[in-house]
Amino acid sequence: MKNTIGNSVSVTLFGESHGKSIGAVIDGMAPGIKVSDEMIEKALLKRRPKGNISTSRKEKDKFEIVSGVFNGYTTGTPICIVIPNEDVDDSVYEKMNGKVRPSHADYTAHLKYNGFEDYRGGGHFSGRLTAAIVAAGAIAKAALDEVNIKIGTHLKKCAGVSDRQLGDYTKDIELLDSKDFPVLCEKAEAEMKSAVEKAKQEQDSVGGVVETVILNVPCGVGEPFFDSVESQLAHAMFSIPAVKGVEFGAGFGISDMLGSSANDEFEVAGGKVVTKTNNNGGINGGISNGMPILFSVAIKPTPSIGKTQNTIDIKTCENTEITINGRHDPCIAHRACPVVEALAAITLCDLLSQKYGTDFPRTIKSGDKK
Amino acid sequence: MKNTIGNSVSVTLFGESHGKSIGAVIDGMAPGIKVSDEMIEKALLKRRPKGNISTSRKEKDKFEIVSGVFNGYTTGTPICIVIPNEDVDDSVYEKMNGKVRPSHADYTAHLKYNGFEDYRGGGHFSGRLTAAIVAAGAIAKAALDEVNIKIGTHLKKCAGVSDRQLGDYTKDIELLDSKDFPVLCEKAEAEMKSAVEKAKQEQDSVGGVVETVILNVPCGVGEPFFDSVESQLAHAMFSIPAVKGVEFGAGFGISDMLGSSANDEFEVAGGKVVTKTNNNGGINGGISNGMPILFSVAIKPTPSIGKTQNTIDIKTCENTEITINGRHDPCIAHRACPVVEALAAITLCDLLSQKYGTDFPRTIKSGDKK
Amino acid sequence: MKNTIGNSVSVTLFGESHGKSIGAVIDGMAPGIKVSDEMIEKALLKRRPKGNISTSRKEKDKFEIVSGVFNGYTTGTPICIVIPNEDVDDSVYEKMNGKVRPSHADYTAHLKYNGFEDYRGGGHFSGRLTAAIVAAGAIAKAALDEVNIKIGTHLKKCAGVSDRQLGDYTKDIELLDSKDFPVLCEKAEAEMKSAVEKAKQEQDSVGGVVETVILNVPCGVGEPFFDSVESQLAHAMFSIPAVKGVEFGAGFGISDMLGSSANDEFEVAGGKVVTKTNNNGGINGGISNGMPILFSVAIKPTPSIGKTQNTIDIKTCENTEITINGRHDPCIAHRACPVVEALAAITLCDLLSQKYGTDFPRTIKSGDKK
Amino acid sequence: MKNTIGNSVSVTLFGESHGKSIGAVIDGMAPGIKVSDEMIEKALLKRRPKGNISTSRKEKDKFEIVSGVFNGYTTGTPICIVIPNEDVDDSVYEKMNGKVRPSHADYTAHLKYNGFEDYRGGGHFSGRLTAAIVAAGAIAKAALDEVNIKIGTHLKKCAGVSDRQLGDYTKDIELLDSKDFPVLCEKAEAEMKSAVEKAKQEQDSVGGVVETVILNVPCGVGEPFFDSVESQLAHAMFSIPAVKGVEFGAGFGISDMLGSSANDEFEVAGGKVVTKTNNNGGINGGISNGMPILFSVAIKPTPSIGKTQNTIDIKTCENTEITINGRHDPCIAHRACPVVEALAAITLCDLLSQKYGTDFPRTIKSGDKK
Repeated sequence: MKNTIGNSVSVTLFGESHGKSIGAVIDGMAPGIKVSDEMIEKALLKRRPKGNISTSRKEKDKFEIVSGVFNGYTTGTPICIVIPNEDVDDSVYEKMNGKVRPSHADYTAHLKYNGFEDYRGGGHFSGRLTAAIVAAGAIAKAALDEVNIKIGTHLKKCAGVSDRQLGDYTKDIELLDSKDFPVLCEKAEAEMKSAVEKAKQEQDSVGGVVETVILNVPCGVGEPFFDSVESQLAHAMFSIPAVKGVEFGAGFGISDMLGSSANDEFEVAGGKVVTKTNNNGGINGGISNGMPILFSVAIKPTPSIGKTQNTIDIKTCENTEITINGRHDPCIAHRACPVVEALAAITLCDLLSQKYGTDFPRTIKSGDKK
Repeated sequence: MKNTIGNSVSVTLFGESHGKSIGAVIDGMAPGIKVSDEMIEKALLKRRPKGNISTSRKEKDKFEIVSGVFNGYTTGTPICIVIPNEDVDDSVYEKMNGKVRPSHADYTAHLKYNGFEDYRGGGHFSGRLTAAIVAAGAIAKAALDEVNIKIGTHLKKCAGVSDRQLGDYTKDIELLDSKDFPVLCEKAEAEMKSAVEKAKQEQDSVGGVVETVILNVPCGVGEPFFDSVESQLAHAMFSIPAVKGVEFGAGFGISDMLGSSANDEFEVAGGKVVTKTNNNGGINGGISNGMPILFSVAIKPTPSIGKTQNTIDIKTCENTEITINGRHDPCIAHRACPVVEALAAITLCDLLSQKYGTDFPRTIKSGDKK
Repeated sequence: MKNTIGNSVSVTLFGESHGKSIGAVIDGMAPGIKVSDEMIEKALLKRRPKGNISTSRKEKDKFEIVSGVFNGYTTGTPICIVIPNEDVDDSVYEKMNGKVRPSHADYTAHLKYNGFEDYRGGGHFSGRLTAAIVAAGAIAKAALDEVNIKIGTHLKKCAGVSDRQLGDYTKDIELLDSKDFPVLCEKAEAEMKSAVEKAKQEQDSVGGVVETVILNVPCGVGEPFFDSVESQLAHAMFSIPAVKGVEFGAGFGISDMLGSSANDEFEVAGGKVVTKTNNNGGINGGISNGMPILFSVAIKPTPSIGKTQNTIDIKTCENTEITINGRHDPCIAHRACPVVEALAAITLCDLLSQKYGTDFPRTIKSGDKK
Repeated sequence: MKNTIGNSVSVTLFGESHGKSIGAVIDGMAPGIKVSDEMIEKALLKRRPKGNISTSRKEKDKFEIVSGVFNGYTTGTPICIVIPNEDVDDSVYEKMNGKVRPSHADYTAHLKYNGFEDYRGGGHFSGRLTAAIVAAGAIAKAALDEVNIKIGTHLKKCAGVSDRQLGDYTKDIELLDSKDFPVLCEKAEAEMKSAVEKAKQEQDSVGGVVETVILNVPCGVGEPFFDSVESQLAHAMFSIPAVKGVEFGAGFGISDMLGSSANDEFEVAGGKVVTKTNNNGGINGGISNGMPILFSVAIKPTPSIGKTQNTIDIKTCENTEITINGRHDPCIAHRACPVVEALAAITLCDLLSQKYGTDFPRTIKSGDKK
């Protein structure tokens, strides 16, 4: 439903890059989830611009929880988080008004909204809005934590440099949690950063692939048609600006495999039903099978680059050139990691709430006891 | 919403592989769309098993439109299409009851539905249900045809063999429309078919990648957060059994590009605004930009294979082996093409109806006249 | 969403009065609910035309459950029930084509669907479709029965004649369950029937008020804004043809009371929290409070009457007269009772599923044990 | 969907009576609607407490539009309006913590949210939240104004005193627009006010009936099953605290009429199709017929009264007494008028957007020109 996602647990997003505030309303969240400013700050910190490889826009991300949290716990009623915009410099955007930036939403927004769109800094289409998603996601992650569901996200590939593969999921999730830059291998991290800096110097940009793992999702979550776990997660992921691909488990690679090697055989091991491989990324027939849920998301190179580009002027409908001088990220793939993780957490809360009801942490925990 | 997809135009799916009937209810479709049995038959024919490379199950796919079409036109009220199941052989399935087929939904369905699921032939999770999607999609395609939106789908890759790239979209769509096997290049078609037959002989299976192009979608369709064109199409695609990846435009490949080559520069050409490249697959900021919408879908190898596999018995919760003797497809990627196309058509109708209202063909056409 | 109602448990309706079939798809119903043909037949019998006081159209209401029930239990996947239309006499309707029946949907449907509507017998707007609602409701009632929620409905008033008030709810629900005509007081029943017969003789029609009581709904169901128990029940009720009013508890009467008498004081009695009065109909702040949920629904007199009426011809847009000769009910208020009850049961299942999850009977029962 | 209402145009509500702020997010509103602070202030002024007959709580209702409006016009992206809470006095509420107020949501909220609810001043259940609805409604009314749809609302009855009937709708809507107290007849207004003051002196409260008329809704809006105009409006109305009944046209009264007098005969008059009477309140078969839409809403007496009442203590689960000393309204029926009107306007925008698309004002106006 337009700017709202989710069935039982939903998030509504509002705001523009250069408006007064951005924010999100989380509805349907279970009551009694412990919420602290620190946990939201920590999540926002991971999304914040990083030194040389990011925009010089200072986003303090001072947020305010204006509703839905009382005495440090979620109440069960809508949680509204507002993040005021600061350090906004309109001058750059005003100058290029009329010249649409290639591969941005300037042109499509102009046609969609008949010219009434707030065009400053991408308006509602700005990556800035993902800060509100990250704040909302921090609360969702806290809810998942109650039932021991853990999420980790790393930059699997950036500027053509690959991180090492995820190994011991639990340890890697902890490692990623402690890191400022979401890459497991230090060598890969250094190479990625230097590739991003190089792109920046050349007034160009690079992209990457983000990979997420989710542990301990109970078996039986999701719906066959049309709300498979994949459908709901992909729906969320493809709403993140710059995402152009989503794959689960072996993903596109599985299409080259034979059935005999692609199939994940079941076995009983240690008293639990597991699969020997996990090419299906923890999902069979759209339903979670209890194995780790694994998915990857392709992030395109930031469309805002310093190089002069051909484009049109929508006021005159003539060909022209554009040189973008704003403060932009030469790469957003690393900053997309906490956003992907936040939306994964929100979607998981929704899926669990659909199956187990509003108070899913309590229902799941009471079921575990039996 | 579980087995219903869509906001303004929706499809609700029902049925099980070995139940009485499967079917779909299409709601919100514009009134006045011409519907004939022939057009649905033609669509179903493309999905039907093909000679040696398919299951030997005879699916006559005799369908009945039980509501919503009057005097050959859609009425605007719900269209229910029922397809009775025939040639159903339960004996095979009864035998393996308890032994869950690897990478199928047998295990997850059992846990999700507490053992009450109709397990015969995959029940509600069967690819059989996609016949109802294809029938519904035929009506959606007729509605799109009214506003000159054309869709074509080919098997871009199968068993490691690649089809030639889409070239002249209009001609290729016509070519694909005329073909029984959705591959543009005859040499590739022959190689794919022989690879599928080889897999069949080896009691194994193969997968593939399906590519779809949609022409003439007006600019300005879709929503930034959280109902981007990509989100809505991917949501639909990931509900198709066996889909493990979805990508738009250059897809995962875009993450390796530099911004300067990934960006699609705008230009005015022939009085129209176009982009010089189409790495974004016709979508900027989640909104259609008027260029062809391009996306690819990864299909895993059919999980049902003749080879003996390890698995568990859910009745005893012990390790065991399974040998699947049912009539199965060694490849479903080619049969997925009409399903992908049908869901793309349904999703497009929904997107257009969200923007232009229930009677989108009339609204768009009256706008064109001005 | 148009012809679908419900969030977690939904019903999609299809069909036209004189088309091939009508039917409903129930989605999201908990697995493991026992379903028998008898219980659906029994429910449909209550809706069937009654002797002299009803239409002479013979509705056999032979139904078929084509999906979602396996070995006598719900599977958890969509349940489609199809009811073929029989004894259809189009000749009457064809004759008056163009002349719109006052207070029917002929005129509004014609404008809404641009003339493509199936006008025969009211098409999709026909009361005939409520048979599918009643069949779906029978399954919903079975699910509620698992958690001891009981529903009873009587014709509180008809043609100005009042039934006695509901007394001992449990006994009255049982009494109503056993009755063919849903009136508690035999004298009132006789008077109502003779008033209906009189109206019939005078080629006129009468209306009534239907009252429903629901017992044992757990406290805490419903949402403050905008999905209160009242909102969700009223939404369902106002979709029934001929309903023009809905009220809860003391209803419109409460607006004349003083707060001191309208307020339902709480007390602990017999170890349970109850209210001394129930002017709020079991709902405080949109949330169930554990007391019986009580609501009434106003049914207008059947708009189809034999008397000649003024109207217009939509083909010529001129004033004209209409004399309706079809087989019609002089009163539908008594036949509305099972429809109101069915939709109440469906809405309750949805409300419970929103709070307790898909498998609400199991979750509630396991909670009771603790 | 919990705290969100609407399909194509939606409103999400957040906040608690004594939290930091309340507010609403309006999504899907057409771009290009002129929005001024004055029009929102004017709407809020009508809801504000009135002299002796209202609470002494000072609600300044200073609001801030934090997104979705740019250069004085709606952008088409989500409009978030935040209203900070001021003049909040917690002391009273803290004292009665544990003692649940009869006919309030204290008890149901406590059970629904497992004790995590913000109980201060009714929390999320407070009538305070309707200020955000009124602010959102002001924008919806501006959108309707573009297509000449006018809404008027009066207090038809209060404390047993009846206002005069609506006469010339256009004039009465203008009259009501100019009035601070929404009653047409000055004598009735005086009597109502004195009845309210009397109730206040007696530490009691009174209720009323609110009536709304909507002019110039195009014919053909609404859906037969399950989204009739009545269903969608009633759904909205029953989410307003204190509403216990909703009726359309002749409402409950129609159930006592004969079909021959209840039916609204069509006629062509002045080149337009109209009905001679309007007992159906402008709606046939759930679809607007072009006549004025008329509905009434029953408002219960304010449950907060000064008189000592019996109740329970939820901490000890024992019987006790409660004396409510907070600043409360002896009547909220007059303050409900702008809330009813706001939700009617929001629902109408949604209905029009469902039929005519996002940019319904433009589509309707361009259709009118033809």
